Amino acid sequence: MPIIDSKTGKVKKDYTIEELIEKAKEMRAYSMTAITAAGSGHTGGTLSIMDVTAALYLNEINHDPANPDWENRDRVFWSVGHKAPAIYVALGEAGYFSIDEMVKLRKLWSGFEGHPNRFKLTGLEMSSGSLGQGLGVAVGCALNARLEKKDYRTFCILGDGELDEGSIWESVMSAAHYKLDNLIAIVDRNNLQIDGPTEEVMQLESLLSKWQSFGWHTLEIDGNDMREILKSFEKAKTLKGKPIVIIAHTIKGKGVSYAENVVGYHGAPPKDGRKGAESLEKAIQDINAKNFDEKKVDALLQKACTYQEEVDQKVDKAMPRFSRDYWWNKAETMKVKMVPTRKGFGNALEKLGESKSVVALGADITNSICMNQFYENHTERKERFFQMGIAEQNMTSVASGFAKEGKTAFIGSYGVFVTGRNWDQIRTTVCYNNYNVKIANAHAGLSVGQDGATHQALEEISNMYYLPNMHLIVPSDSLETEKGTLAVAKIHGPAVIRYAREATPIVTKEDTPYAFGKANVIRFRGEKEEFVDAFDTKLASDYQSEEEDVCIIACGPMVAEAMRAAYILKKEYNLETRILNIHTVKPLDKESILKAAEEIGLVMTVEEHQKGGFGNIIAGVIAAGKKYNAPLLLDMMGVEDQFGLSGAPWELLKTFELTAEHIAKKTKALSEKK
Amino acid sequence: MPIIDSKTGKVKKDYTIEELIEKAKEMRAYSMTAITAAGSGHTGGTLSIMDVTAALYLNEINHDPANPDWENRDRVFWSVGHKAPAIYVALGEAGYFSIDEMVKLRKLWSGFEGHPNRFKLTGLEMSSGSLGQGLGVAVGCALNARLEKKDYRTFCILGDGELDEGSIWESVMSAAHYKLDNLIAIVDRNNLQIDGPTEEVMQLESLLSKWQSFGWHTLEIDGNDMREILKSFEKAKTLKGKPIVIIAHTIKGKGVSYAENVVGYHGAPPKDGRKGAESLEKAIQDINAKNFDEKKVDALLQKACTYQEEVDQKVDKAMPRFSRDYWWNKAETMKVKMVPTRKGFGNALEKLGESKSVVALGADITNSICMNQFYENHTERKERFFQMGIAEQNMTSVASGFAKEGKTAFIGSYGVFVTGRNWDQIRTTVCYNNYNVKIANAHAGLSVGQDGATHQALEEISNMYYLPNMHLIVPSDSLETEKGTLAVAKIHGPAVIRYAREATPIVTKEDTPYAFGKANVIRFRGEKEEFVDAFDTKLASDYQSEEEDVCIIACGPMVAEAMRAAYILKKEYNLETRILNIHTVKPLDKESILKAAEEIGLVMTVEEHQKGGFGNIIAGVIAAGKKYNAPLLLDMMGVEDQFGLSGAPWELLKTFELTAEHIAKKTKALSEKK
Repeated sequence: MPIIDSKTGKVKKDYTIEELIEKAKEMRAYSMTAITAAGSGHTGGTLSIMDVTAALYLNEINHDPANPDWENRDRVFWSVGHKAPAIYVALGEAGYFSIDEMVKLRKLWSGFEGHPNRFKLTGLEMSSGSLGQGLGVAVGCALNARLEKKDYRTFCILGDGELDEGSIWESVMSAAHYKLDNLIAIVDRNNLQIDGPTEEVMQLESLLSKWQSFGWHTLEIDGNDMREILKSFEKAKTLKGKPIVIIAHTIKGKGVSYAENVVGYHGAPPKDGRKGAESLEKAIQDINAKNFDEKKVDALLQKACTYQEEVDQKVDKAMPRFSRDYWWNKAETMKVKMVPTRKGFGNALEKLGESKSVVALGADITNSICMNQFYENHTERKERFFQMGIAEQNMTSVASGFAKEGKTAFIGSYGVFVTGRNWDQIRTTVCYNNYNVKIANAHAGLSVGQDGATHQALEEISNMYYLPNMHLIVPSDSLETEKGTLAVAKIHGPAVIRYAREATPIVTKEDTPYAFGKANVIRFRGEKEEFVDAFDTKLASDYQSEEEDVCIIACGPMVAEAMRAAYILKKEYNLETRILNIHTVKPLDKESILKAAEEIGLVMTVEEHQKGGFGNIIAGVIAAGKKYNAPLLLDMMGVEDQFGLSGAPWELLKTFELTAEHIAKKTKALSEKK
Repeated sequence: MPIIDSKTGKVKKDYTIEELIEKAKEMRAYSMTAITAAGSGHTGGTLSIMDVTAALYLNEINHDPANPDWENRDRVFWSVGHKAPAIYVALGEAGYFSIDEMVKLRKLWSGFEGHPNRFKLTGLEMSSGSLGQGLGVAVGCALNARLEKKDYRTFCILGDGELDEGSIWESVMSAAHYKLDNLIAIVDRNNLQIDGPTEEVMQLESLLSKWQSFGWHTLEIDGNDMREILKSFEKAKTLKGKPIVIIAHTIKGKGVSYAENVVGYHGAPPKDGRKGAESLEKAIQDINAKNFDEKKVDALLQKACTYQEEVDQKVDKAMPRFSRDYWWNKAETMKVKMVPTRKGFGNALEKLGESKSVVALGADITNSICMNQFYENHTERKERFFQMGIAEQNMTSVASGFAKEGKTAFIGSYGVFVTGRNWDQIRTTVCYNNYNVKIANAHAGLSVGQDGATHQALEEISNMYYLPNMHLIVPSDSLETEKGTLAVAKIHGPAVIRYAREATPIVTKEDTPYAFGKANVIRFRGEKEEFVDAFDTKLASDYQSEEEDVCIIACGPMVAEAMRAAYILKKEYNLETRILNIHTVKPLDKESILKAAEEIGLVMTVEEHQKGGFGNIIAGVIAAGKKYNAPLLLDMMGVEDQFGLSGAPWELLKTFELTAEHIAKKTKALSEKK
């Protein structure tokens, strides 16, 4: 049944097959325009699933965009949140909101998050983004329909790479156990995942027999053929006694010639931008939707641009003001190089790979976290790299097996997935066994940017710090990430390296002192041509108090902001700042913290993390350290007990008030209480 | 190949089939004796896997007990750690240590932990206990053999209920992907798990076709028939190109008549103890091992008893001493009732179940965490209880599906598994979606006792506190657990109820004030006939300072210890104590904490958790609260960055220095710094 009026039961619009085919084209054109406007997004999977999406939202499911919470609507769960553009464009076409709005994809406050957030748009059944969770929610929803004797059907869209996740097979098993024939799973079988073809990354075939052996009805179709899609939906209605899976064979990047079956277009916008061989213009030509010409593209891009300007102004307006602009590379004296911290990890891993006792394991995001540097220029090391697919739990256990046999085993992924998804494996298998597993906790913090909340890890410090045997480093820049990675490789036992994705200012030098487990003191010494030269850095244990006015204790990319804050505090208020760079969070250099608290009496902690995850540890050291006769002023800065947002990395740091300007302002305010 | 001398290659002992059959009997007799001596342990699975175990360790694998780290040995991974008695008895029979030692099973410091710890015994390849992780480690080990061109084979013992875990299917998929024909998995297919028959809890059949569809060679045998076992091992050697699984059909409780195929004997010792219908004596008769008579039993039990006496003395000797004994129910005035806090959860759930909008989901440990009270006396509610098997990730997602449809969905399991194994699901699906999922984080803390470290959750406060939208209660006793559970059910959004397993003193009353999100102040007012009557409790917001000498801030079962500590501090040193019972950890009653710190200036935090997980949060509130001109003394008590141990619950609290006696001693010492 297509879109209906839930009050009268009347069909609002009946689409012919030809119209649906045309709609799918239009939806592809919208998606490509939005992804281009965003400058990021998941092209490949958005295009592969589009025909199924159009059929589903415009023809198959019972729903009423005017009454999104209508209790008899069919439910659609997107377990693959990264195909968000397809969802948005379908909801727009169906009439939940004006479809043109979705060109604000991935822009701050637009609601069109990189991965869907159900509180920001109508028509979404759930917020998703971490793979392997949607099918379970769909099982719950379908069980509820049975319990409440409701006729609605539950659909769940799955990626094929996602089937690497064991949690999917838990859900598959449970749906069969409960014989949920009101549940229809659709697998977007486009054969590619981030690191390559699914059968090379982690063999899924014979996929059909897997689902059958788990007790499901299976249908297999060409998922880019509208007739087959519609037929499979009809067939699904006749199948009883078991849940139904439709394996929809699709082409990743379908409809855009240069993106079809190209691994690199998993999560990237048109390479050449608006014009060129691999451009939006070419995409629109390839898609060839009626009523979607260059004028339409212009209008949409203009809309996106206008929106971004409004965001820029709003973000800018909320920033603290000083006598001059201290932003990175704005003023002459604020010159820094920007390098992603992940590069530092890659550099270190490349060096460490020389040793045959080092192995590396990937979870289908190898290049993005720079793990490929392990073997990129050293093909003979390929035999020591093991692709584990999107299965972080197993990756952790397999790494433990190597570690048990004497290897140093590196694993890595997004922070959320590589310390959160596998937390129990880290605790019980890695830490309790004290195995030599090193965890690259990549893409940490808000600076992940446009992917949004689901991918912004803000809880790893607290999740990892309290594990016995664990070591935890949170380096400030690419250089320090390299040094830290080399350092933890030398130490026996589990370790986590928490580092960011996007370009981060280089605020240390090759010869900056670095000792694992020891904090550094950083002091502003007066303006220089290069920002980094304006500072002195010493091991905290070598540092003599200069009776500074304030102390900022920071880790990770917040160290660079703390340095800029020290600069501002000196220039604007003549305040001297002692920065403690806690690059090693565990074991913690407690002495340096106690010394700073005692000598200065005013401490600001700063973390790109849920506030207190780091700050409370520091507070604990200070409070439990000694009898405080001297006055102590302490405050914390971090993310204030909330999830992140889609937006540009620097926009987010500004919005969540974690820039130097905010640090300077709050530290100044704290100093006034003294 | 049987046990060999790794230096000469000579076979140390060649067993005939008859001898192996006899050895398996003897090993059963040892195990039953040890489980009886321990008073707890996993009878069912230990007995079902025993024939396979005997065949494996005495006949099949290459190993040399005199050289446990011999690099060419075959590796055996026990993914099912709870079958520990079988492992210990096999290692003992093989000669890794004197087999009689294993009668110290589950006793403090014995090394024979409830779940195996590789650092405490030779011959163990890994520490395990949390299901679903061993096969991945085995995959890593087998991959390493191939990388290093070594001939050793890798075996992995799996339970059948364990196959509910998705992490297993990740490992299964990866082993096939890498075509690991040097890997042999053995499934102990005894058809029962904790909550009932596997096919009722979570259907596994057709199990063979599942493994086949995932690309494995499959063998199916009677796993209690020595000939078939040996034949399957021979056959496995001939199979190439794929990993091999042996589905060993066994009888749970095999060899002990009253335990055979009885669900209740999953994790219990003989019901009638030494003598009676379901006793050790009867078990030994049923097993009928040569050379294992009642005299042998006597000698072993005596050995266990003597060891326990030594432990008792050692534990007792290390306790702080006072002018008299203040232990629970020892003195006349220390009388308390002891009720497991889980009862309070069960009572609340029974009440809440009246509402049709409440559903409950189990993870194969329903009765043990008192979730069965939901339907036990209300069979009509059975339709609102959903068994999810040992699949905590899926349970969390399915609960979210119900919550999404307007239900209040309760899930529960051991703390480690229900907040750790599924951490990402809790973060991204439950918290980010703000679904109304209530998590019964049962069996928390050291007081889980003999199960040991793997099952003692000591990290949930830090894991859960920093999640946006989360609510977290840590009630002190059964009554407060009931009140708290009823309270969080009323609040929309995710909540965790952290409660203990074993009997805990009842230190509150029905009419003790309780307000969610508000701390209580507890004050000792002088000895009474009943311990609980010696105290006054007020909401912190209603409390006027009495200028007490010390403040103890506690949560969970530590509140009762803090009360006893207040008693001791008054009686022994005339010190007045303000106890803050932080039953709600999130949202935190910061005002009460600040007020206490300010008014008293001396704070001790106490948690049955990794030290600082709770204490650092308190320290953060105090340190960031205001300008401290008054002196502040703060110290923390908790588990000192280490894993737990097997032992009796109270033994462990004494050993980890978390009793009232320790609190009183340390608080007194802190007060002397004032």
